[in-house]
Amino acid sequence: MAFDFLQVPEQEAVWVQATAIQQQMVALLQKLDVPADHSRVTAEILTFVSLHGVDTHGAGNILNYCAAIEDGFYTIPQRLEIVSESETTALLDGGNGLGFVSAHRAMELSIEKARRYGVGTVTVRNGHHVGMAGYYAMMAGTQDMLGFAMTNAVPVAHPLHGSQARLGTNPIAFAAPAGQERPFLLDMATTTVANGKISLARRLGVPIPAGWAVDAEGNPITDPPAARSDSWTMTPLGNSHELGGHKGYGLAVMVDILCGVLSGGGFGAQLQTGDNMTWTMAVDIARFRPVAEFKAQMDEMIRSLHATPAQPGHKGVQVAGDPEFDAADIRREKGIPFQPAQYEAIVAGVQRLGVERLI
Amino acid sequence: MAFDFLQVPEQEAVWVQATAIQQQMVALLQKLDVPADHSRVTAEILTFVSLHGVDTHGAGNILNYCAAIEDGFYTIPQRLEIVSESETTALLDGGNGLGFVSAHRAMELSIEKARRYGVGTVTVRNGHHVGMAGYYAMMAGTQDMLGFAMTNAVPVAHPLHGSQARLGTNPIAFAAPAGQERPFLLDMATTTVANGKISLARRLGVPIPAGWAVDAEGNPITDPPAARSDSWTMTPLGNSHELGGHKGYGLAVMVDILCGVLSGGGFGAQLQTGDNMTWTMAVDIARFRPVAEFKAQMDEMIRSLHATPAQPGHKGVQVAGDPEFDAADIRREKGIPFQPAQYEAIVAGVQRLGVERLI
Repeated sequence: MAFDFLQVPEQEAVWVQATAIQQQMVALLQKLDVPADHSRVTAEILTFVSLHGVDTHGAGNILNYCAAIEDGFYTIPQRLEIVSESETTALLDGGNGLGFVSAHRAMELSIEKARRYGVGTVTVRNGHHVGMAGYYAMMAGTQDMLGFAMTNAVPVAHPLHGSQARLGTNPIAFAAPAGQERPFLLDMATTTVANGKISLARRLGVPIPAGWAVDAEGNPITDPPAARSDSWTMTPLGNSHELGGHKGYGLAVMVDILCGVLSGGGFGAQLQTGDNMTWTMAVDIARFRPVAEFKAQMDEMIRSLHATPAQPGHKGVQVAGDPEFDAADIRREKGIPFQPAQYEAIVAGVQRLGVERLI
Repeated sequence: MAFDFLQVPEQEAVWVQATAIQQQMVALLQKLDVPADHSRVTAEILTFVSLHGVDTHGAGNILNYCAAIEDGFYTIPQRLEIVSESETTALLDGGNGLGFVSAHRAMELSIEKARRYGVGTVTVRNGHHVGMAGYYAMMAGTQDMLGFAMTNAVPVAHPLHGSQARLGTNPIAFAAPAGQERPFLLDMATTTVANGKISLARRLGVPIPAGWAVDAEGNPITDPPAARSDSWTMTPLGNSHELGGHKGYGLAVMVDILCGVLSGGGFGAQLQTGDNMTWTMAVDIARFRPVAEFKAQMDEMIRSLHATPAQPGHKGVQVAGDPEFDAADIRREKGIPFQPAQYEAIVAGVQRLGVERLI
């Protein structure tokens, strides 16, 4: 869920239509020798993420991915390879290329396997940043399946009572379709907040709440730090032992096991900046009960949650996915907002690479 | 992880050897016409839970289960029925009987399916209390598989910003085997604490920390309430929006979907006290990579976490499962501690039912 104090002021934003930025990203990637299908998948995912309001993980980052390609950090064109496979499982090597491409293929495979056998699960090694994990969960969610996606990362968070980082923000995403209501879409870092929220606070010049990050002694810090360093760590969801910090920490390790150990690609402390291993799973609802019945009960549950009387001072109760789908409703019409500096940088990148300007 | 202020004082405890209480529970259940195999499974699980230090969910509750059988709340003998099934999935009807029996069967089936097809997942409707979800996850963990178990329950917790309960404590358990290190075993309520910790605080006459429960206006309460009522609710893991309360809430709904909606047995708000739907899954590690390699990397990860320098004032970093396996090491020798009143009540129950006294 978004935080009001972390919104980019909309009056300053440059609004770009989704189709325009999507085509611009395809052009940029193809110019850098990314194959057409890989460019399409990457641009589609980044556009989906921005449309759904997750600005920290969306199209605003396109130049970072371009730079990683130009620097040779990514192998382009990447070659996906199935290392091992069975009816319901696969281990996919992402070929050191774009994480979007390998995670997308992993979920496609998961869905194919789930359609044939009921469940499919694929873990990715040699992978990179996948953007918003929820995108991949939704790929299954739109196919009358339950979708799961998780991804690990280089350490930024301490294990409970530890004074050094050992874990990434390690997000968990889960999607389930509903009938007349919108899907349930949970997409959460297992830290108190996602990494990008702290750098966004720094860019916006606002303090962060106590409980998001601590110094090496465990004291809360409210001045958002500039970059990853030994002098501070992010907190696991739950924060203190008393309030369940061992749970956020435990979930982060679960993500490391499914993504990093099951794949052999490496757990947090074994990763370099920009490495991300990813786990996906799809479960075919129709194997359990008629999909229409499942969806009707989902509707009932979502309505019951929305109808919960609010605590004083709050407008109402939301359901996971509401902020994202609300943002998409607005942005499909109005476009995607970019910070002016971000927009100018993308335009400069387009010009430098000699690509046709589409935004 | 245990809280020091919630420990039953050990000098007051009555210590009973695990085999004795296990046999006593089998005798009690058989006297109430629970079939021999169902009695054995139930007593084995409750003993495992007590051995592993989870006193709120273990053998101390045996008389509650006996009372539910005598009251006719449970159907005994229960008849398990597979409602639908495919290669990797099943929907199991627990026959309104002991939740231990149906959840155990669900995980057995999950493991069988995972052995044949790589993954197996079974959801249970018409089920009841399963004790500690981690037991079922460990069933897979000891078979070189990843184990997942979740269970939903009658509402005690509010959705973020809601003033009424809509969600159970809805625990998530996950187990993964290691090599020379002990398994990773995460077993966590998706609320800030498990329900039993608040009633235990009340029994012990100690206040609960701010953040575990709130009144209907959302103000923290520290006097542990006597029973479920409209005047208070438990908090989702993360508590406030700023500190991630939407994440604990979202995980709780995910549990409701997997357990209650996928099975059709009902989400939290549709359940009566004592109803619990359960979801289990097993994933065969060998389908992805050699088990020995997986386990060696698990060892490396666990050692790296244990080796994290501690924050000042803390002894060190634990890994999920450490408190449980530490307790089991002690209790296998010393026995299981019961509060004197609890022990006396079990003895009185044994005498009232005319069962041979074994403790």
